[in-house]
Amino acid sequence: MLIHSASQLLTLAGGPQRGRSLGRLGLIPDGAVLIQGETILDAGPSEVLKQRYPHEPGLDASGKVLMPGLVDPHTHLVWAGDRAAEFELRLEGKSYLEILAAGGGILSTVRATRQAEPADLLAQTRRRAAAMFRHGTTTAEAKTGYGLDVEAELRLLDALLRLDAEGPLEIAPTFLPAHAIPPEYPGDGEGYTRLVVEAMLPALPAWWRSHAPGRPLPFVDVFCETGAFSLEQSRRILETARAAGLPLKIHADEFDNLGGASLAASLGAVSADHLVKTSPADIQALAASDTVAVALPCTPFGLAEPAYTPAQAILDAGGLLALASDLNPGTAWCESMQFVIALACRTLRLTPAQAIAAATINAAAAIRRDRAIGSIETGKQADLILLGVSDYRHLGYRFGTNLVTQVIKKGICYDVD
Amino acid sequence: MLIHSASQLLTLAGGPQRGRSLGRLGLIPDGAVLIQGETILDAGPSEVLKQRYPHEPGLDASGKVLMPGLVDPHTHLVWAGDRAAEFELRLEGKSYLEILAAGGGILSTVRATRQAEPADLLAQTRRRAAAMFRHGTTTAEAKTGYGLDVEAELRLLDALLRLDAEGPLEIAPTFLPAHAIPPEYPGDGEGYTRLVVEAMLPALPAWWRSHAPGRPLPFVDVFCETGAFSLEQSRRILETARAAGLPLKIHADEFDNLGGASLAASLGAVSADHLVKTSPADIQALAASDTVAVALPCTPFGLAEPAYTPAQAILDAGGLLALASDLNPGTAWCESMQFVIALACRTLRLTPAQAIAAATINAAAAIRRDRAIGSIETGKQADLILLGVSDYRHLGYRFGTNLVTQVIKKGICYDVD
Repeated sequence: MLIHSASQLLTLAGGPQRGRSLGRLGLIPDGAVLIQGETILDAGPSEVLKQRYPHEPGLDASGKVLMPGLVDPHTHLVWAGDRAAEFELRLEGKSYLEILAAGGGILSTVRATRQAEPADLLAQTRRRAAAMFRHGTTTAEAKTGYGLDVEAELRLLDALLRLDAEGPLEIAPTFLPAHAIPPEYPGDGEGYTRLVVEAMLPALPAWWRSHAPGRPLPFVDVFCETGAFSLEQSRRILETARAAGLPLKIHADEFDNLGGASLAASLGAVSADHLVKTSPADIQALAASDTVAVALPCTPFGLAEPAYTPAQAILDAGGLLALASDLNPGTAWCESMQFVIALACRTLRLTPAQAIAAATINAAAAIRRDRAIGSIETGKQADLILLGVSDYRHLGYRFGTNLVTQVIKKGICYDVD
Repeated sequence: MLIHSASQLLTLAGGPQRGRSLGRLGLIPDGAVLIQGETILDAGPSEVLKQRYPHEPGLDASGKVLMPGLVDPHTHLVWAGDRAAEFELRLEGKSYLEILAAGGGILSTVRATRQAEPADLLAQTRRRAAAMFRHGTTTAEAKTGYGLDVEAELRLLDALLRLDAEGPLEIAPTFLPAHAIPPEYPGDGEGYTRLVVEAMLPALPAWWRSHAPGRPLPFVDVFCETGAFSLEQSRRILETARAAGLPLKIHADEFDNLGGASLAASLGAVSADHLVKTSPADIQALAASDTVAVALPCTPFGLAEPAYTPAQAILDAGGLLALASDLNPGTAWCESMQFVIALACRTLRLTPAQAIAAATINAAAAIRRDRAIGSIETGKQADLILLGVSDYRHLGYRFGTNLVTQVIKKGICYDVD
């Protein structure tokens, strides 16, 4: 299939974009892309490709932007229930403790997720995956983390594998047993860390080989934060995971700086995420590494907090910056990477071009998929989106609605609307 | 038709909600609404209404919230072109003068709108109206203001009447010739004010009688702001309009406080809109009047400005607070009142219930339609929406996506998605 006559084709070709090089769109006016099966075979000016492939069936993209599918490299996709009541209590000025007393907080989601019927959990999660896809996300990372015991965490990982198998949204799973301290270990992060290190992580590779044979191992993530896991606990968890050959991620510096970003860089983690309270020294450490800095602007927005990721400092230092939604029931129930882009323009001061690169090729790097997805280049997976606008800058400029008209996943075209 | 079994029916009954009374949803669990033709005949618990109307054809709203259609009382719906390039320039740190030199600013929209073919202008505007409707707005105010001469302003008013006649979005038109100083009057706000007062406003009533016979007169609005129209010019324009029997609106205190809010209150304007730099004295004046204070949080959000409408002070003073999108190409291209609600929760510290009341019954009051729309009460117009969630607080809690599944306008049900 030859998708042709796009007002603008954005290829994002050339690999992940470091520091101030962020924002190279590879823009081709009146562009075309040839796909065959699940793969991109060619991309370039429509005139050239129409001559080169005169007998290829066409898809007219006149008046539209054609670009890589959006990649969302940080989501907590799989949970049951909601925390809408907690949101209202917070607006009414209730304290964290009052919210906990009213049954709110992360452990309320753990309770609901543990208790959910598997089919119901899957159905609730599927609705979110469908919303993400409809808004142009073709691949998303998705974490466990609302199970918090061996059986429940592996059940969530299994749900993610099932949803991935269903498609069309492709899922890169992450194992996050160290998301919170479960009710069975009240005030005992140390005891739960031992369970993670001594039982949960050791069980993972064998479980994975039997449930997802041949697939690359999942990421292991940890919430390094006051009230969650200390730097030292985080280090033990991540070092144990690394010793088992598992690729690493970390939640760092969301509310307090415990040193998680520098830890991620020193351990060769694939990404360090949140990075709100990150220091200049941490930023230097990240920039000197291949660890991708993942900004999650929906989280401060969702909480109405004033501080956002110091994205400009990360770019100045030469870091690799990506964007993600942080989709979760506590702070950021937002399935739309288009909204993440609009928010990043305003709160991180990214241009639309920078935000788009951070949400495609750099987001793919944040899940180690940049050789397969995140750009339109020969040999890559045919994951593309069409926007119903003729100028890419409408992404960012406009907000609160969905500009995507078609999503092409592994070569199959889905109409949106 | 009996719409029944809604998880929550929000009636918003009882008229506009002043001050701290804002947020009375009239929530009925397992609720039902009986509509006939264009009109609401009854509302109450499903059990009661099913017994009362056993032979009425049903629409099952299980698992959904049923509530009045959203009302958007401040939009600049009708324009041609876009300002996406200007958005990028601003993010790159370009000054207002550099943006003007690059062809940006409000006058670029005036140029594009004047030059647009009528059919093209209508088509572009229709797409936005459709997006608003899809996101649950059943009635919207819409302003002229990108014509800025007699002929062009009346042409825009005519476009709004045409779109209203097409439906399904119902439009309450506003005449806003004093939106900016046109290129024909460089630096001469005084000269253009004379044109507005001596030629444009006097022409309006006769034009209206021939183009919209029998319809209530349109609102007249003015942009009272540094760089636009002074307080004295605004007063002359509004007094002239009032003398002709036209209801009044004002853009006040968006960037500077020129006294527009107090002017609006003293003239008995229907609404005063923006109200960011509004003083405590102005708030008192508004609260002592029937002028509705319309907050437009998308505008500071769109511009990434930190200051928002002092909504809490307006509520404390006993004012009538409404929400609107300010949909326009310069600062806020957002068709979704759902996003306005989500933003208002975070930036104005409204609860979801308060934001919903401000976007329905109070928004109806801001266009003098609160006796016809904005709530679910016997005899009112059958404008309702269904949300694909079982708890109204998902409005506000979730952001960046569309929760509406069906829009019912004048009794006709439109599926969304």
